[in-house]
Amino acid sequence: MIKVGIVGGTGYTGVELLRLLAKHPQASVEVITSRTEAGMHVTELYPNLRGHIDIKFTEPDVETLSECDVVFFATPHTVAMALVPELIKRNTRVIDISADFRLKDVEVWEHWYNTKHTCPELFSKAVYGLVEINREQIRTAQLVAVPGCYPTATELGFLPLLEAGLIDPTHLIADAKTGVSGAGRKAAIPMLLAETSGSFKAYGLNGHRHLPEIREVLSRHINKAVDLTFIPHLAPMVRGIHATLYGRLTTESIGDLQNLYEQRFANEPFVDVMPAGSMPETRSVQGSNMCRIAVHQPQGSDTVVVLSVIDNLVKGASGQAIHNMNIMFGIEEIMGIDVIAMMP
Amino acid sequence: MIKVGIVGGTGYTGVELLRLLAKHPQASVEVITSRTEAGMHVTELYPNLRGHIDIKFTEPDVETLSECDVVFFATPHTVAMALVPELIKRNTRVIDISADFRLKDVEVWEHWYNTKHTCPELFSKAVYGLVEINREQIRTAQLVAVPGCYPTATELGFLPLLEAGLIDPTHLIADAKTGVSGAGRKAAIPMLLAETSGSFKAYGLNGHRHLPEIREVLSRHINKAVDLTFIPHLAPMVRGIHATLYGRLTTESIGDLQNLYEQRFANEPFVDVMPAGSMPETRSVQGSNMCRIAVHQPQGSDTVVVLSVIDNLVKGASGQAIHNMNIMFGIEEIMGIDVIAMMP
Amino acid sequence: MIKVGIVGGTGYTGVELLRLLAKHPQASVEVITSRTEAGMHVTELYPNLRGHIDIKFTEPDVETLSECDVVFFATPHTVAMALVPELIKRNTRVIDISADFRLKDVEVWEHWYNTKHTCPELFSKAVYGLVEINREQIRTAQLVAVPGCYPTATELGFLPLLEAGLIDPTHLIADAKTGVSGAGRKAAIPMLLAETSGSFKAYGLNGHRHLPEIREVLSRHINKAVDLTFIPHLAPMVRGIHATLYGRLTTESIGDLQNLYEQRFANEPFVDVMPAGSMPETRSVQGSNMCRIAVHQPQGSDTVVVLSVIDNLVKGASGQAIHNMNIMFGIEEIMGIDVIAMMP
Amino acid sequence: MIKVGIVGGTGYTGVELLRLLAKHPQASVEVITSRTEAGMHVTELYPNLRGHIDIKFTEPDVETLSECDVVFFATPHTVAMALVPELIKRNTRVIDISADFRLKDVEVWEHWYNTKHTCPELFSKAVYGLVEINREQIRTAQLVAVPGCYPTATELGFLPLLEAGLIDPTHLIADAKTGVSGAGRKAAIPMLLAETSGSFKAYGLNGHRHLPEIREVLSRHINKAVDLTFIPHLAPMVRGIHATLYGRLTTESIGDLQNLYEQRFANEPFVDVMPAGSMPETRSVQGSNMCRIAVHQPQGSDTVVVLSVIDNLVKGASGQAIHNMNIMFGIEEIMGIDVIAMMP
Repeated sequence: MIKVGIVGGTGYTGVELLRLLAKHPQASVEVITSRTEAGMHVTELYPNLRGHIDIKFTEPDVETLSECDVVFFATPHTVAMALVPELIKRNTRVIDISADFRLKDVEVWEHWYNTKHTCPELFSKAVYGLVEINREQIRTAQLVAVPGCYPTATELGFLPLLEAGLIDPTHLIADAKTGVSGAGRKAAIPMLLAETSGSFKAYGLNGHRHLPEIREVLSRHINKAVDLTFIPHLAPMVRGIHATLYGRLTTESIGDLQNLYEQRFANEPFVDVMPAGSMPETRSVQGSNMCRIAVHQPQGSDTVVVLSVIDNLVKGASGQAIHNMNIMFGIEEIMGIDVIAMMP
Repeated sequence: MIKVGIVGGTGYTGVELLRLLAKHPQASVEVITSRTEAGMHVTELYPNLRGHIDIKFTEPDVETLSECDVVFFATPHTVAMALVPELIKRNTRVIDISADFRLKDVEVWEHWYNTKHTCPELFSKAVYGLVEINREQIRTAQLVAVPGCYPTATELGFLPLLEAGLIDPTHLIADAKTGVSGAGRKAAIPMLLAETSGSFKAYGLNGHRHLPEIREVLSRHINKAVDLTFIPHLAPMVRGIHATLYGRLTTESIGDLQNLYEQRFANEPFVDVMPAGSMPETRSVQGSNMCRIAVHQPQGSDTVVVLSVIDNLVKGASGQAIHNMNIMFGIEEIMGIDVIAMMP
Repeated sequence: MIKVGIVGGTGYTGVELLRLLAKHPQASVEVITSRTEAGMHVTELYPNLRGHIDIKFTEPDVETLSECDVVFFATPHTVAMALVPELIKRNTRVIDISADFRLKDVEVWEHWYNTKHTCPELFSKAVYGLVEINREQIRTAQLVAVPGCYPTATELGFLPLLEAGLIDPTHLIADAKTGVSGAGRKAAIPMLLAETSGSFKAYGLNGHRHLPEIREVLSRHINKAVDLTFIPHLAPMVRGIHATLYGRLTTESIGDLQNLYEQRFANEPFVDVMPAGSMPETRSVQGSNMCRIAVHQPQGSDTVVVLSVIDNLVKGASGQAIHNMNIMFGIEEIMGIDVIAMMP
Repeated sequence: MIKVGIVGGTGYTGVELLRLLAKHPQASVEVITSRTEAGMHVTELYPNLRGHIDIKFTEPDVETLSECDVVFFATPHTVAMALVPELIKRNTRVIDISADFRLKDVEVWEHWYNTKHTCPELFSKAVYGLVEINREQIRTAQLVAVPGCYPTATELGFLPLLEAGLIDPTHLIADAKTGVSGAGRKAAIPMLLAETSGSFKAYGLNGHRHLPEIREVLSRHINKAVDLTFIPHLAPMVRGIHATLYGRLTTESIGDLQNLYEQRFANEPFVDVMPAGSMPETRSVQGSNMCRIAVHQPQGSDTVVVLSVIDNLVKGASGQAIHNMNIMFGIEEIMGIDVIAMMP
């Protein structure tokens, strides 16, 4: 059994970790911390877990956490960087679902997160946990940075086209839509049902923190400058990301795009290339760790359109985190996360 | 492996059977029928099942179905009664999720369903599949009638009070609210999102077909006339039933109602009596087979209020059906249906 | 032109006052206060008002407010009671949408609102602004207490039965459902879309503050003890209250209930008795000042069921407040609030 | 009083016409037709109109319709073209909300609508009712084709940039999102709440009928070939279109885009250019005839992003239609449609 600790368990990625790990045959949640709710049983906050897990929130404590085999951080940014160095020192492996170790460029990180990073020396150690590009490094990683939700959907959608060099990498467009759970479980007027239901809007046009992440990851991966216009939107729903991705073809000999996608992800358990002509719905991945992708060339124009959907809390966070754990500990990749999405 | 057939697999109870059975360790779906979609792969209709089940809809055919160990009917009423006699004759066990065998009184059935029943002789054979009252008969049943969604939530909520004789059984009130999936997957203007979203309404005041079911089941169970005012409502959500139940106490020595409920359901794996003071949300059972119940006596008055929530498609249909199957085939009761609800 | 002041204009009742008053032919909003947003133009907070009203939030100030002909309080409770005595002294009329003057019994008020009332001497001056029972007193009132949203729907629904003495007044049941805007525009985790969408729950079983209001108003009105079980629920929608009301008939000679309701409200511009057999939807009053009511006697039993729907922010708050203003200032009752609900 | 006829009044654009015209000081609805509901009072279908309009649906009949001053067609395509020639002959003016006269190129029309047009000779007579480009022709038009909902939001958003020649007109991208009311009031499984709530998807990638309309209108307007990638999406809400528009700048001397937009629409009563940095929500135009637009140049790149929101049933259909009527009959442009959007 893998002994698991969770730091910051009261949020939505926390409860998703618990939902999935409670049924994971080879993992056991030993510690779950929350400064605000220490002493409370997790089922008081999340009654869906009643009968499935018997644990209370405790104050975060490095000693206790370091006795785990792996610690997940399901926290806002800057929390992980305060604890991770100690855990790494004690050989506890860390899977950080927050943003603290997603970038390689410290200056860029400090600019976008508008704060000093306290352990930039760990940037080089941190493996970016997009399994579909970094599977081998993940196996031995001591510190994994789980990709952001938008980056997961966007990067997976663009990968085959960029790797094949078919589109102009400097003018990508990602028009992305998310459910409100992406904003986390925190009191905020703009996320009230009364403010968001029945309405749709863009946000973050002045610069969303997932923009530099997508830019850096894709640039490093294809070893070429990548730039994109990234416009996130808020849809009146709880879960799901739908990324509509636009790329301009740079060559006429593009071959069969459908085949390109199918080949690229043929061995990926959690990327499902849909049949030609498909338009995947976010609910088709609701609660599951799958990313469903469809590639289109509407009206035969030179603009390729890729549709990429994930559940932001699973493939875009906790499910992907457990996928990384499975790889790090050498167990079956899909163990505990091979959940079927709920439809309707 | 239990060989399973499903008649009428294109509806919401059909896809829920598939979602749950695809992961059931001891069941294997061999046949799934649909007149309208025969020849189509189930994943074309329900992409959430991609990679989890590999089967096509076929025309319903008694020969093929009778080779199964058990056949589920996930059909509108009157479909099951046409096929069930043949299956029973061939010793195939039947679990009918539709309404064809829920009542014992043929006249009442024919009145409320406004049609002739073609095999009333099977009424006495049919076991009403509310495990919490009929577990023993279910074990050996050849034909199980799965309770309706509203009756499941309502009957479980009233059971302890009625069994203990604490409330007036002739003036029960059940104010019930459902999500729209209860209306099934069929084209109907009143169920459009544009007609239901952002709005709330009562319906069926002139008589909902679940009323005679609740009346008959509870009357037979306590062997006393039971009557109730049953007002169903439509809430703008996909899944979930919330039954708010009112009963008038007939005695002052009621003892501890919380304790009464906890004792009554102490050994029931799928009824969760919430801590005193709780108000369960429907999302706390979303996708799960649990019924969560809370009992209240507001302001110390002589009106007891019981809150009972289920997922209408799981505990109120397909999950409860599989629970019956597990009991009928002598395997672990919770196998394959011990799913954790999805929150948020 | 009636010069209008609004205290506490940033909430949902505030913006509804502005939406309606901006088009009111004989009212002009002169002052709108907000401690937190003083200096901000109202359209920054509510862009729907762009081009329709040109005013900024200011600090509340008795001098300025008292220059208005009437001041609306769209505030949480305890705010009005601090300012109202001064305004009344200066002959400014007050329409309080908050709860400060809804009850007549000071002890009950202080018990339920859990605080000392600072001007209980005004209780006798305050007229409860349910036009349908207090029209005459409202004409000359200097201080009107606008009914709560649940009380409006509930009281109107029960009135004809209680006035006619047809039901047992001590065992009323009000099973009420509201949209989330009733909780106001304030940051609170339980009101997030991620917490409420797709789910339904009861709340406030231990005692909602609208319970003593309904009890007192109805008791005083029929001059008999009235008691009720009042169970509020939260539905996943923005606006609307649906009250499902249950009363036990005490006589068999009930006459024609449909006719009773039609007669009772024949001259009420904002109560619409629906045709027999109707089940009104909350969206049929969305954005309008109408209360739609239907009366039923399901299955011919001795339990009468009344369905009563309003828009909680209009008939349940700001629209009803303006209705009171129109009467107080002797202008056409429906002026400025004869808005047609938006469907779909 | 302008005598108004409405053909096809049972759909959502029909009820919106009624909601707005019932309060229009200079219009009177004389006839409203519906083959399926002839004889039914409109308030049976739309109870929100109770007390506001007293009219029944009748069979469509050219004689009766031609006695009106103007006839609106709120019908599926191909209905208008069967009746319009007769009405035009009798000098009844026509405002067609359907698609029958939106294009100038008959071949293109017949290709996209996949049917023969029966009166292509009227194409040259028909004025495309986008007031913001065709105000003068509308004044004297006998036949107005009201723009589609997507085209309205998209064309208004791109106009200033295209007129100023600042972007490459052959590679526009319109990523548009709509609520489900755009699909009309018709029984269709994919539009059920159970199928759409909590989910998001793209549709019509193979070619939506609004694509040729946008292409033709913009091309003719700037007298240059315009081409675009148009990807519509379905958001889980009732009303609203949010068009996110992308254009690539072709020059560095672009001047002040904010100013460009403000100047362009300075005299347009129903286009609201939001302050710099704004991200308009669809609910800010809910129920109103306003189009709110914001222009952005994220990260200073050469991709301009325009956000354009409308209520698809008002500015995108019935409100815009009445705007045309007002202009055709020489009355105040905003009469009857200067409604404030409902927030929340």
